[in-house]
Amino acid sequence: MAEKGMVIVVSAPSGTGKGAIIEKLIDNDPNIRHSVSATTRKPRKGEKEGVSYFFKTRGEFEAMIKDGALVEWDEYCGNYYGTPRDYIEKTMQEGLDVVLDITVAGAVDIKEGCPGAVMIFVLPPSLAELEKRIKSRGTEDEEAIRKRLEYSYSELRHVNKYDYIVVNDDLDTAVLEVETIISAERMKYTRNPSILDNLYKGELK
Amino acid sequence: MAEKGMVIVVSAPSGTGKGAIIEKLIDNDPNIRHSVSATTRKPRKGEKEGVSYFFKTRGEFEAMIKDGALVEWDEYCGNYYGTPRDYIEKTMQEGLDVVLDITVAGAVDIKEGCPGAVMIFVLPPSLAELEKRIKSRGTEDEEAIRKRLEYSYSELRHVNKYDYIVVNDDLDTAVLEVETIISAERMKYTRNPSILDNLYKGELK
Repeated sequence: MAEKGMVIVVSAPSGTGKGAIIEKLIDNDPNIRHSVSATTRKPRKGEKEGVSYFFKTRGEFEAMIKDGALVEWDEYCGNYYGTPRDYIEKTMQEGLDVVLDITVAGAVDIKEGCPGAVMIFVLPPSLAELEKRIKSRGTEDEEAIRKRLEYSYSELRHVNKYDYIVVNDDLDTAVLEVETIISAERMKYTRNPSILDNLYKGELK
Repeated sequence: MAEKGMVIVVSAPSGTGKGAIIEKLIDNDPNIRHSVSATTRKPRKGEKEGVSYFFKTRGEFEAMIKDGALVEWDEYCGNYYGTPRDYIEKTMQEGLDVVLDITVAGAVDIKEGCPGAVMIFVLPPSLAELEKRIKSRGTEDEEAIRKRLEYSYSELRHVNKYDYIVVNDDLDTAVLEVETIISAERMKYTRNPSILDNLYKGELK
């Protein structure tokens, strides 16, 4: 069901396991694609243009902002990240859903520019668990950890800008919950405006 | 999840198998209750006051309409049917969901009086199948069948007043789809407004 693809926004405070949820979501459903962001960050080893990111200079990125070519953008750790409008529109026209893995600031813009977007916020099961997960990465010094925690706490406050909440206690359960939300959204009348015409013409599938 | 119960409206043209879907839904989930309607129809054998229906005289029913004691009501085959407001509010306060099996006309009223209601419309897989199901009941003469079909067709046109569409081709699939919608709705932020307070206080379940 659903006549056209939809935009699915998954946001979460740093350390909530959002990346793992999105990865499983895409593995499980061939109808869901990861959005490819534009960024001014330098490519890392193995990253491919147009697959990992669309790599841009600051000048190119700022021109995209000015031209309205991004449905959302944000600056994070000194680099721009944004979602190119033409990429997501093309993917949706093909009947595919696009999942956007973006910051809370970016997500708020999506809601304005893309009113049909499904907005999902992933919460940790507890603040203690959030702290534990951030610390267990073990790659950062105390100052960086403290900053990351503060940033996570500030992001939590924006949960009220989202449509749905998923608590990531167990990864598989969280993935199933996101899948449940997507399945329900595909049954929305607004995503199937030709359903009655289709019924008059023949079989519904 | 969901801090309070919700109202679930399931409507469908006559002959779509709505009754069977609702029955399974309630059997499968102890958190979902059937609403008890008020009616001026005479009790049939085995029907119990307050369980099958709240049986009312026309005068009593009309007083309920006047007092705003019904969230919706409609007249069907010469009898009044309506949903008592106090019954559904009490059930929702207990954290239970209430499923309303009502006509399209009644459902439109619910949407106005109860903005959080989840509105589900069940469609037949084809018009040929709808006709077949209505005829196969075999309990009515041709004139009654024709009237029932006409009524079904007129109800179909109101699908755009609903949030979700479920196609009842296979009963178990249709039940699962309604359950998916309900699960997703329970994850809505608006149904869990204290989630952040709960996270600050301790564990989320």
